[in-house]
Amino acid sequence: MQTLDRLVQGFSRLPGLGRKSAARLVYFLLGAKDEFVESLARDLIALKRNTRPCSECGVYAEAELCAYCTDQTRDTATICVVEESKDVITIESTQSYRGLYHVLGGAISPVEGVRPTDLAIDGLVRRVREHGVREVILATNPTVEGETTALYLRECLQADGRPSAELTVTQLALGLPVGGDLEYADQLTLARALNGRTTI
Amino acid sequence: MQTLDRLVQGFSRLPGLGRKSAARLVYFLLGAKDEFVESLARDLIALKRNTRPCSECGVYAEAELCAYCTDQTRDTATICVVEESKDVITIESTQSYRGLYHVLGGAISPVEGVRPTDLAIDGLVRRVREHGVREVILATNPTVEGETTALYLRECLQADGRPSAELTVTQLALGLPVGGDLEYADQLTLARALNGRTTI
Repeated sequence: MQTLDRLVQGFSRLPGLGRKSAARLVYFLLGAKDEFVESLARDLIALKRNTRPCSECGVYAEAELCAYCTDQTRDTATICVVEESKDVITIESTQSYRGLYHVLGGAISPVEGVRPTDLAIDGLVRRVREHGVREVILATNPTVEGETTALYLRECLQADGRPSAELTVTQLALGLPVGGDLEYADQLTLARALNGRTTI
Repeated sequence: MQTLDRLVQGFSRLPGLGRKSAARLVYFLLGAKDEFVESLARDLIALKRNTRPCSECGVYAEAELCAYCTDQTRDTATICVVEESKDVITIESTQSYRGLYHVLGGAISPVEGVRPTDLAIDGLVRRVREHGVREVILATNPTVEGETTALYLRECLQADGRPSAELTVTQLALGLPVGGDLEYADQLTLARALNGRTTI
């Protein structure tokens, strides 16, 4: 098989890319500057070689500790727990959070065979105990698996024996998306929005 | 900037990929097998180094002549003229064509400053004259630019002095897409479908 066909096949294995969009990418690259394509190739090789989970929180980093764990200006008394490393980027893009993170590496899912022991829960409990954490924000996905994981984590953190006055466990608010329309909200979301209504 | 961010930025410059889908790709690659990512990187470098337009027809190839020009089983009396090399893949996917190709490298567009001299028209006229071509299929895009180019090409080919009995210049049929719905067809397409109606 020729390079061009092999690249189209390779790209079409990536998420969100079909055969047609992969072919479009490759033909674009054929017309692109040599330096651009070569730097892309170099970075691809460097990516796997240089990037590994932060030994403290699990966020992908190019050093032993990630940029969040080493940032002295961040609030070390708050930990935001997410399922995947990429969720951190999403939360950072809000510019509304200045605490630390903890990556679980997934969510509890009996269907997919993911058990609590497969997730980085022990590390979280240890960090909360040893570093004087005062709030844990559970930012798992609002799915059955994510909610199950959040409930399980709350149990683990409370079972660790810290009095609740010292440690608060919170969860992201569920409700209507900003700019959304009541008419198009599903029943479950609307019910959660009602339950979680706030005084204005 | 770190490798991960640089890769996300690089991928988001590719057509059809925004920042979010680029990030999804990169995180997928982080979780993918080393060999897969490395072969992708190797092929990216090889792509620009090994691939160039076929000296005869302009289709991207990894040799002086492309696979179509060197294929002895193809009908050398028919040339299908396309705007871009990638259009060849689309036509090949129909498995309905066994002739040769000719890539123009674009379409005449006064707005974008593409003049006839910027396209590989001389080469086409020469091939038609020298190789006893009996049919030229104009498969430019059904846009104003593509149609203009097709009309211009017809003039060029006829001005070359071959009697029309010897050389037929055809164009792809315009009409309703298969599986489409009359209701959703635009007026122009429907008008062309009416004009081009066939006996059944």
